[in-house]
Amino acid sequence: MTEIPKIEIIGINGIPEISQGDDLTEAILSAAENMGFTLYDGDIVVVTQKIVSKSEGRLVSLLDVSPSDIAIQYAVDMGKDPRLMELVLQESKSIVRMDMKRGILITETKHGFICANAGIDSSNVPGSDIVCLLPIDSNTSARGMRRSINIACGVDIAVVITDTFGRAWREGHTNFAIGVSGIEPMLDYRGTIDANGRLLKATTIAIADEIAAASELATAKSDNIPVVVIRGYDYPHNNDSTVDVMLRDIARDLFR
Amino acid sequence: MTEIPKIEIIGINGIPEISQGDDLTEAILSAAENMGFTLYDGDIVVVTQKIVSKSEGRLVSLLDVSPSDIAIQYAVDMGKDPRLMELVLQESKSIVRMDMKRGILITETKHGFICANAGIDSSNVPGSDIVCLLPIDSNTSARGMRRSINIACGVDIAVVITDTFGRAWREGHTNFAIGVSGIEPMLDYRGTIDANGRLLKATTIAIADEIAAASELATAKSDNIPVVVIRGYDYPHNNDSTVDVMLRDIARDLFR
Repeated sequence: MTEIPKIEIIGINGIPEISQGDDLTEAILSAAENMGFTLYDGDIVVVTQKIVSKSEGRLVSLLDVSPSDIAIQYAVDMGKDPRLMELVLQESKSIVRMDMKRGILITETKHGFICANAGIDSSNVPGSDIVCLLPIDSNTSARGMRRSINIACGVDIAVVITDTFGRAWREGHTNFAIGVSGIEPMLDYRGTIDANGRLLKATTIAIADEIAAASELATAKSDNIPVVVIRGYDYPHNNDSTVDVMLRDIARDLFR
Repeated sequence: MTEIPKIEIIGINGIPEISQGDDLTEAILSAAENMGFTLYDGDIVVVTQKIVSKSEGRLVSLLDVSPSDIAIQYAVDMGKDPRLMELVLQESKSIVRMDMKRGILITETKHGFICANAGIDSSNVPGSDIVCLLPIDSNTSARGMRRSINIACGVDIAVVITDTFGRAWREGHTNFAIGVSGIEPMLDYRGTIDANGRLLKATTIAIADEIAAASELATAKSDNIPVVVIRGYDYPHNNDSTVDVMLRDIARDLFR
């Protein structure tokens, strides 16, 4: 019998509702402890964007937003709330596609993510006029959490922060990495040799996005599992990594 | 202490080189048995495209391909092998993007997948003039494997067949589902209520693609792990499903 290679996706449940200023690391570690779960070196802690945004005060009340003329015009054209439209424009650096008829607005966020409505959404937030913006810099958020976990538990782990985006060409959303720390987000097979001794020419795998996608299987939207630990995956370490290497430059992008 | 929710990604190793006509199900079950691994009801067997194509005789020798005039012209323009170009055109129903300078050709395959070179590649195939085409119909292939596993082991499992594609906007490839059986590939949250009692408006999750992505973490390209079992994920069953619901109709696609 050979050894069975196994990767585990472990949901951390029992994390309470997170508010601005809450210590997210402490909330996660406390929930893990209540489960009898201990972090090890090499674990990947995958955190959904919403609780990161909440802890960083990125909830905005639409009652406090004064839409600009252009936001009002777009909102009327697309059947959207002008205050939400204002926030989408504020959070974006360019509009990638607009479909007036179906009310679809794909923008490039200030971080460089291509997604609908600049990643702003209103599910799983308390209060009917509240929406949630993406963290200002999820790489920095991930770095902070990694450091706090290291200090609190003495373990060397990676952190991946995720959000759910749509894709070109395919229906349905999947989770993507919007911030990383401690893990190299792309695995480069270029120049390596395959099982038949042939050069693997052109393959670079976006493992951070695959980790994000894997984690979503355990963080069902309506349940309260905003954090997942992936254990047993031998990832390439990098103390200075960010997701930015996964964001295709517009000059190389055939679909913008 | 609450119960720890856990999903496992288990790599099946020791599967021998697959040739045309080989019984893939038997090869997988035999390798699993050698590992001391038994399939259970509710497992998802995730199979990489390459071994499905090999068992179905989808390896083609470039020595047997006579390129058409148009294939020769494109190949010259893009610095590609005219015989490979001929196969790409034969396997495609439309060209989505061509970048002559960088030699990038994105097509829509006859199945409806948008990917580079119609999914044809030459890594992990034996022989220097051999390339591998996608299975003719991976949904049918998945259905056949699901049925054979059910007959051989008496278990009700799902099968997902995957391939590695590039994406718009983001660097790096990830795994996608190109065929399914027994599992509904999309999970529809529309109309459900979130943890705060608010309607989750617009989210449909492409779980088959997330399963494919998760599986890639255990099927490192150069190692011989072409099959993975995902255990502990409570997926929606569907005996008649295909991946076709995940393929966005061109009329709804803002990026073609």
